[in-house]
Amino acid sequence: MARVKITVSYDGTDFHGFARQPELRTVQGVLEEAIWRTCGKRIEVFGASRTDAGVHARRQVIHVDLDESPGIPHEQLAYALRRQFPQDITLLSTHVVAADFHARHNALRKTYRYTVCMGQIWDVFRVRYEHRIHTFLDIDAMAEAAIPLLGTHDFTSFCYAHAQQESKIRTIEDIRVVQCDKTTVFVEVTGKAFLHNMIRILAGTLLEVGKGRLQPRDVEGILAQKDRRVAGPTAPPHGLTLWDIVYADERIRDVHEAESLP
Amino acid sequence: MARVKITVSYDGTDFHGFARQPELRTVQGVLEEAIWRTCGKRIEVFGASRTDAGVHARRQVIHVDLDESPGIPHEQLAYALRRQFPQDITLLSTHVVAADFHARHNALRKTYRYTVCMGQIWDVFRVRYEHRIHTFLDIDAMAEAAIPLLGTHDFTSFCYAHAQQESKIRTIEDIRVVQCDKTTVFVEVTGKAFLHNMIRILAGTLLEVGKGRLQPRDVEGILAQKDRRVAGPTAPPHGLTLWDIVYADERIRDVHEAESLP
Repeated sequence: MARVKITVSYDGTDFHGFARQPELRTVQGVLEEAIWRTCGKRIEVFGASRTDAGVHARRQVIHVDLDESPGIPHEQLAYALRRQFPQDITLLSTHVVAADFHARHNALRKTYRYTVCMGQIWDVFRVRYEHRIHTFLDIDAMAEAAIPLLGTHDFTSFCYAHAQQESKIRTIEDIRVVQCDKTTVFVEVTGKAFLHNMIRILAGTLLEVGKGRLQPRDVEGILAQKDRRVAGPTAPPHGLTLWDIVYADERIRDVHEAESLP
Repeated sequence: MARVKITVSYDGTDFHGFARQPELRTVQGVLEEAIWRTCGKRIEVFGASRTDAGVHARRQVIHVDLDESPGIPHEQLAYALRRQFPQDITLLSTHVVAADFHARHNALRKTYRYTVCMGQIWDVFRVRYEHRIHTFLDIDAMAEAAIPLLGTHDFTSFCYAHAQQESKIRTIEDIRVVQCDKTTVFVEVTGKAFLHNMIRILAGTLLEVGKGRLQPRDVEGILAQKDRRVAGPTAPPHGLTLWDIVYADERIRDVHEAESLP
């Protein structure tokens, strides 16, 4: 038996999220189906992040345990799996890893990007992956508002109200508000782990600041109140992309993979 | 009454082509519906190009005749129309033009781009707009094969066999095969007008050359035979994008429009 780390990319539009659900098309379900058709066995897939319905992944990591035999050799696994993938998931790389590797636990940090398209004209070829708003945002105010979110805090105000997690303490290692062209802005957040809906509520709250409905100084108070009702709305899922995941053993990444990423 | 030139962009995935068809979602149908809801009248839309089902447009031009009253002022037309557009069509600009302007007849030249993604890894965020092939192409051979296609020829071999057009003589002003990154290649063709399926058959034939199934020198013979059966297959529609249309009166384009284009 060998534990295999698999890196995939997907367009979340037509998936009901990552986690397997009966009768629904999910990323985990489609991956397990592809592995079953390739290896002839039902094998559970463990993902680094349980992305919500509609959320995309530029780079998502999973691990699976595969038999050495009678399955196909690991060198041919990527090739064989890709043939089973629908066009909205692509396999970037496969690596045999240590038996105790865990896609979620071993992730050092994850980066999510929330992208917004501003104004009256939108790019029809990117609109599936961007949240459209009709006005222009005050980017400087958003960047200022993001500062108090950096570091370790109780993020209860930025967590889905009915979430299961006991501790609401998380660490934001980096948060950036970047205008990449005249009409496109993204909020990028990096940390080891996040609460349920946390990035979308952070984005939704910063958008309220960008629209002038909240002031940058309000964010510190929202954080302190530990009450989901005082933060902004949960921004829609299709603007969110799991951008990258970094592991300790990944000083040098597969060149082919890195070059093929958008 | 005023004649208005409208420039739009669309993702062709969910359209049954440009031309209106009963019971089907088409670009012309959706545009006429949006104008009807905005102006309260059924007004015919004339397009510069009748793109096929699944073909995209980065820039498509139409013209319509609108009443001066009791409709909305032309300055507000773009704003009002955009509110009626679904997310897969965007309005780039509107201009009042001379009463004899015609979107198709006045077009000096049109450029189409056929994009191919090569290899085993594809970009899930672009795959709706690219034709995926599993092998790598011989780009130099494709570029060489394109040379005899330049200029004025009888393109019967590169025209849908049951096309209505009487004359099959057309002029290709420019044809380029460009590798833009390790896995992406496009064929770009410019001319005043093209035959039915002509760009997709040109692309399909050059792909046969890229795969080594045809030699570059074969293309001249295919052209000479004036027989659709000797050219390559019609490449699938989703790889094709109407890239640009140029008019004589457009020395300087609207800056906002130019900047918003992908």
